[in-house]
Formats: sequence, structure tokens, C-alpha cells
Amino acid sequence: MGKGKLAAQVAHAAVSNILKILLDSSKIQWREWLEDWVSQGQPKIVVKAKDLGELLELYEKAKSSELPVSLIEDAGRTQLEPGTVTCIGIGPAPDQLMDQVTGDLKLL
Amino acid sequence: MGKGKLAAQVAHAAVSNILKILLDSSKIQWREWLEDWVSQGQPKIVVKAKDLGELLELYEKAKSSELPVSLIEDAGRTQLEPGTVTCIGIGPAPDQLMDQVTGDLKLL
Repeated sequence: MGKGKLAAQVAHAAVSNILKILLDSSKIQWREWLEDWVSQGQPKIVVKAKDLGELLELYEKAKSSELPVSLIEDAGRTQLEPGTVTCIGIGPAPDQLMDQVTGDLKLL
Repeated sequence: MGKGKLAAQVAHAAVSNILKILLDSSKIQWREWLEDWVSQGQPKIVVKAKDLGELLELYEKAKSSELPVSLIEDAGRTQLEPGTVTCIGIGPAPDQLMDQVTGDLKLL
């Protein structure tokens, strides 16, 4: 995957979480986390999973921790097969909650 | 800039446009463009400007075309000087309007 394509996947994950929080969720806490995050300059950290299995485990862990989370599958119009899972988006959420899920991962 | 950092900048631009449309703008048309774009799977294309001058020209052109647009400056916590302009986000908007601004740019 080229770096532009990779960036689009990450952006897709980030946008999906925002839309989920603003449009599809009744969780007031998520909305508060979003507002805090925006007021801090919406910091983002891009980290890597070692394989698809680890990525899916992280997705389930984030869901069971009740964090905002999105699983991104590529539409497959260009470089990948349709339905390829490319990344997940987690948060925004308070640091200590994020770290319980992603704290051991390395920067991409 | 590493590819994770680059991806975070692109995601920052995308999220900034969504927040602008949903929270800060009274433009009903922008909201309609956003809804169309989400229903189409929120496609994103990452293209490159040749230098900062061209990037700023594109920013002004998008603004004067009344497209949703964000200018992203890095907070400078890690790899870059504070305030470095890294990218802009344009859209979502109908293809023909986007192409008038970005149609000649190459994929990143």
C-alpha cells in the first residue's frame, strides 16, 4: 500500500469515529471525550499491529472497553482486494483508557 | 516525515473538515455534500502539491470556490517545527467542483 493510500485509510478510521460519535451514538460520554480532544488540538497517534489477528483482537478489546471504535475495510477500487481490513480507529478517549488497549503498540 | 505522521496529518485534515461542516457551519449545502459522501463510503484521495506556495494557492482557490477547507499546521511536538503547514483538506463536495481545484494534482 502506498503512503497516500495508507493515509486515506487512517483518515477513514478517524472520520468514521467522529461520525459515529456525532451522528450515530447516544453516548454522552463519547461526546464529552470528543469535545475534550478537539479542544486539545485533536491529537492522533498512528500505531501498528503485527498482523490481522492482533488488529481484530484490539478491535474487540476496544469494543468491550466501550471506546469509540471503527473497523475499516477497503472498497477495493484500486490497490487492494474488496473487503480487505486495513486498520481500526479507536477513540478519542482519556489517555488511561486508550493506553489499556493501545499502550504497548509501536508507532507506525 | 514518517508515514504514520503523514497519515495523522491527512486524518487531521479530514476530521477538521467534518467538524467544520457538522459543528461550525450553517451551510446546508455542505451538510448535504457530507451526507452524499458518507452514503458513497466516504471516498478520499490523497494528492500532492509541489511546494508550500502551491498548497496555499490551492487553499485560497478552495475557499473562494466555497468548498469546505482546512489548513493543517503541526503542533510541533515531535518531528516538525511548531506551526509547520503540512497539508490541507478539501471537501467533501461534488466531483466537478473538487476537480476544478484538485483535478490536475498527482496522487501521493
